[in-house]
Amino acid sequence: MSLIVQKYGGTSVGSVARIHAVAAQIAKLAGEGEQVAVVVSAMGDTTDRLVELAREVCPDPDPRELDALLATGEMISTALLAMALRRLGLKARSWNALQLPIETTAHPGRARISRIEARALKKDLESGIVPIVAGFQGRAANGDLTTIGRGGSDTTAVALAVVLEADECQILTDVDGVYTTDPRMVPEARRLDRISFEEMLELAGQGSRVLHLRCVEFAARYGMKLRVLSSFEPGPGTLICQEYSKVEAPLVSGIAFNRDEAAITVANVPHQPGVAHAMLKPISRAAIDVDMIVVNAPREERVDFSYTVHRDDYGKALELTREAASGYPGATVEGDDRVAKLSVVGSGMRTHAGVATRLFETLAKEFINVRLVSTSEIKISVLVAEKDLERAVGALHRAYGLERAPSS
Amino acid sequence: MSLIVQKYGGTSVGSVARIHAVAAQIAKLAGEGEQVAVVVSAMGDTTDRLVELAREVCPDPDPRELDALLATGEMISTALLAMALRRLGLKARSWNALQLPIETTAHPGRARISRIEARALKKDLESGIVPIVAGFQGRAANGDLTTIGRGGSDTTAVALAVVLEADECQILTDVDGVYTTDPRMVPEARRLDRISFEEMLELAGQGSRVLHLRCVEFAARYGMKLRVLSSFEPGPGTLICQEYSKVEAPLVSGIAFNRDEAAITVANVPHQPGVAHAMLKPISRAAIDVDMIVVNAPREERVDFSYTVHRDDYGKALELTREAASGYPGATVEGDDRVAKLSVVGSGMRTHAGVATRLFETLAKEFINVRLVSTSEIKISVLVAEKDLERAVGALHRAYGLERAPSS
Repeated sequence: MSLIVQKYGGTSVGSVARIHAVAAQIAKLAGEGEQVAVVVSAMGDTTDRLVELAREVCPDPDPRELDALLATGEMISTALLAMALRRLGLKARSWNALQLPIETTAHPGRARISRIEARALKKDLESGIVPIVAGFQGRAANGDLTTIGRGGSDTTAVALAVVLEADECQILTDVDGVYTTDPRMVPEARRLDRISFEEMLELAGQGSRVLHLRCVEFAARYGMKLRVLSSFEPGPGTLICQEYSKVEAPLVSGIAFNRDEAAITVANVPHQPGVAHAMLKPISRAAIDVDMIVVNAPREERVDFSYTVHRDDYGKALELTREAASGYPGATVEGDDRVAKLSVVGSGMRTHAGVATRLFETLAKEFINVRLVSTSEIKISVLVAEKDLERAVGALHRAYGLERAPSS
Repeated sequence: MSLIVQKYGGTSVGSVARIHAVAAQIAKLAGEGEQVAVVVSAMGDTTDRLVELAREVCPDPDPRELDALLATGEMISTALLAMALRRLGLKARSWNALQLPIETTAHPGRARISRIEARALKKDLESGIVPIVAGFQGRAANGDLTTIGRGGSDTTAVALAVVLEADECQILTDVDGVYTTDPRMVPEARRLDRISFEEMLELAGQGSRVLHLRCVEFAARYGMKLRVLSSFEPGPGTLICQEYSKVEAPLVSGIAFNRDEAAITVANVPHQPGVAHAMLKPISRAAIDVDMIVVNAPREERVDFSYTVHRDDYGKALELTREAASGYPGATVEGDDRVAKLSVVGSGMRTHAGVATRLFETLAKEFINVRLVSTSEIKISVLVAEKDLERAVGALHRAYGLERAPSS
């Protein structure tokens, strides 16, 4: 008998019919003799609707009260799921963050889980009761309800799995696993049977929406096996776990992409200390997140300096950069908000120089211009014109043979 | 500076606009230098909608989970009201039953408040913070969320007022006070400036929907002044408090009525011990509430035995009574579900025999038949045909001079 923590997202419990389907799925697992603890998100768009309601009352609602309000979404879904399980003859019990408690830091809207008191849950599991825990919420030391940020239920699930020493933490969602790239863009995209935490982190950081960065980080830190599964149809999903041995590590595991990019380039600035800082300081002061940062090798003591921001921040960032650059005679500022980023991710590339070569070769054959390049140990990201994105991802998917399962 | 506990019902906080109106009303009281603690119900028909949702999931939802579900309604309204107050520049803080806690017995759906931990609330009040407490909910000793039954928020408010030693507990609702009778039926009906707990108990028990019986009982037991006020328009409302001195006690304070009655009469049963019990046992076994019970004086060793039930239970009750009566040869069973009950209530009737005389005289003049009569110390209830109800109430209202304020 193993212990599985399952997490069902908002879409998975988005209606009464879906709640019954989820209950049946849990009952099946329990019927196979597994111990199951469940974490649920709020039904469908409940959280969004509550945020909207709060904004109607007050454009800038008090963070403590907003958290108290949002936490009700998960309390509703836990109670309903427990009812549905009981209807199937299973013993089940809902738990909210105040009851267990799930202790967090006192940062409304972005609290961090510091401790989960699991005594009651262990007692439930020993008595054959399926505990249904409210995701996304916590309790600060002063007793306030807190929330741990969007996608927080995934993190609740991993934390719970760690505390309960579960054998696996399953994230049930509306996709049936992690793919080599987005199947809506590349029909040959293949579901991965497994992927390393490191690769998943790069994919999540590069725009893959399957799992939240924080949840993967958390699982990686504690070595908790994660599995992404569909809550709509049966299947093995994708297992995310510690890295495989070097031999079996695939060269490239997947291609992530992100359309919401905008690039700004300051050309012909003096190559001297402090210039990059002078350009970026006003951006960070304006609370604009910078993604890629690229500085080219200097030419005649002058350099080009480029970075990318979210497309929504483009106008403001361009304005701030123009101001900052006006102090450097001869410098020019150009921007482009019709760009997209694609990232090739794979643990194997650590030891294979050929991945980058193949990338540039493939894009050259397709006459696709590469605007910016940035690399990490297991990832190469390039910025291309948005109109070229789909063709670039498709060509690279074929070039790395991602449509075929690895021979291992 | 006095301390006022205010309770706002579901209609009073039924929309974002209403929440703002309530916040303004609280801010006005606080601006007058009063300390205010607030209890709120769930917005509008939230509780009904949650019950419906639960029934969709499971026709017979688990009581523990149903309570966990329903408690979210008040958590939502407390958070929104606190936001609205903060928007007006007041300090306010929402509290749910788990946080304080509000301890109750472990009877889901009909728990009783056993203790309110008021430390946090007193601290809030001392710091100039308006605490907003979720009504209707509690925490059982095992940490489960409980609810204390419909209208429970009124009881929460009175309990809180007692614990905080408040000067007054104000119930803000959609009527502006307690009336001599329902103004929709009798246009001359007059708002009472004050009424005794005892009279209010009789009125609440006799169908007046302004306050719940339990909340009045609770206030009476602890001598907590209650005031019924409109949350829609300013006014003094009706003060409910300990009985006035004998001199000022009005003969009749009001007339309550209830249309949902059905009467069953078993005629010609033997006048011997155990007959009433034999008739009523199957009724109470079927969990049917019996209201009036009347047994006439025996005639030739046989009696007539009558009682009333809620109209919804009429068919079942009639059937059970026919069965029970079949054991007594000669007994006949008759029923009527087109009857209504009216009750004349007043502390003064304790010392004035004339109230009953006036009642029968008035109804006789109107050619209204009295079907059943039952009396308590400060109340006379009569059952009449439903078609005569409106005429009866109007005539009695005039006969007792209720449209005129007492000369005191």
